[in-house]
Amino acid sequence: MAAQKGFTGDEMRRLLRRVRTATLATLNREGGIPYGSLVNLASDVDGRPVIFVSELAWHTRNLLADGRASLMASELPATGDALTGARVTVMGRFLPCAEERVRRRYLARHPEANFYAGFPDFAYWRLEPELIHAVAGFGRIETRMPDEVFPPAREMTETEDSAIAHMNDDHAEAVSRLARRLGGAAEEAWKIAAIDPDGCDLVAAGRSLRLEFPEPVFSAAQLRVSLARLSSSG
Amino acid sequence: MAAQKGFTGDEMRRLLRRVRTATLATLNREGGIPYGSLVNLASDVDGRPVIFVSELAWHTRNLLADGRASLMASELPATGDALTGARVTVMGRFLPCAEERVRRRYLARHPEANFYAGFPDFAYWRLEPELIHAVAGFGRIETRMPDEVFPPAREMTETEDSAIAHMNDDHAEAVSRLARRLGGAAEEAWKIAAIDPDGCDLVAAGRSLRLEFPEPVFSAAQLRVSLARLSSSG
Repeated sequence: MAAQKGFTGDEMRRLLRRVRTATLATLNREGGIPYGSLVNLASDVDGRPVIFVSELAWHTRNLLADGRASLMASELPATGDALTGARVTVMGRFLPCAEERVRRRYLARHPEANFYAGFPDFAYWRLEPELIHAVAGFGRIETRMPDEVFPPAREMTETEDSAIAHMNDDHAEAVSRLARRLGGAAEEAWKIAAIDPDGCDLVAAGRSLRLEFPEPVFSAAQLRVSLARLSSSG
Repeated sequence: MAAQKGFTGDEMRRLLRRVRTATLATLNREGGIPYGSLVNLASDVDGRPVIFVSELAWHTRNLLADGRASLMASELPATGDALTGARVTVMGRFLPCAEERVRRRYLARHPEANFYAGFPDFAYWRLEPELIHAVAGFGRIETRMPDEVFPPAREMTETEDSAIAHMNDDHAEAVSRLARRLGGAAEEAWKIAAIDPDGCDLVAAGRSLRLEFPEPVFSAAQLRVSLARLSSSG
């Protein structure tokens, strides 16, 4: 990996985790014109983007015919020229994804989707990244390869389930304290529903909160330290 | 034009006028993957979308190779599921556009672009619409043809220059009063910089405000009535 200046791969992946929505660009089935549409965004443990879409929608019909697509996520300034804001485009191919982990992680990020999660026309798709192009502000442009933005997170993927169970079973008080610090209501029973190298998703009563780790965490040992620190703080 | 239910062509065009940014989807020059990117959005008098982009950027490089593209604009709810928000995708072909009117209207909407308006790598492009697909909320989907969303606005296009001059020369006080009502500072000298069937853009000191007409206005006679009403109100 080359020395990185400006907008790093970690920062690109973390932006993709933070945003709740993105623009999906697919090839329109008739005529091949690129078709932009709005989607809610979630991520697999390693950061690969995940969407949950109905086959009644044009974008899904397009993906079924040709999986080539991109997702563009942005964080715009509240005022002034939007082009000073950061945005990341991940280009690649979408594949349908029936893994239980992906379903759980999507609903941890978008509990409002539980309302239609059982509809037979809906399915999860994961973007297999091929190229990432990002703009950190006016003229600050970076191009990255998939392994710079989405390095394999095998240990975190293997350890996610047991880390979630451990936190919810043995540190329920600390989890609710974390949720309150992020703006959650005290009377609700918050649970950790997803953990990845960049943070975790907490859910209660159809709401979701995201806690960002100060730095990316790629090993089970590092994760134990990070979670212990979070549990004892605040 | 068929009887319209739900999200009308007028409403789609008015949404495109209100938003300041949109996602452009182009065909990436290598590999043909649809590439989503962020752009500032303006409009010609009839509502056809206009962008101002640098040929150093990937999206422009893509448009130079293949003009097929779409623009997706959205108005998302402040809270709750983003998929309940309205969004409009205009598919078609972008063509470079050197008309002075288009330049003036773009800078009326985005005065911050005056900073780079003279850069030789920047140019204006107008989207020639072929198909419009809109979602007014969860599952409320409409498809429209160009003349339903962007009806010709010949009279308004012909009358825009003289209407702007008339308002700024003969009703300067009323224009500043309108600007103040929209949040403009009283001490600034506001001017009308663009007029179209859906409203007008006011500018002062590098800032821009948009005034929406209550209903679309397609004739010079209607416009005189609307502007007289605005000038005497507030």
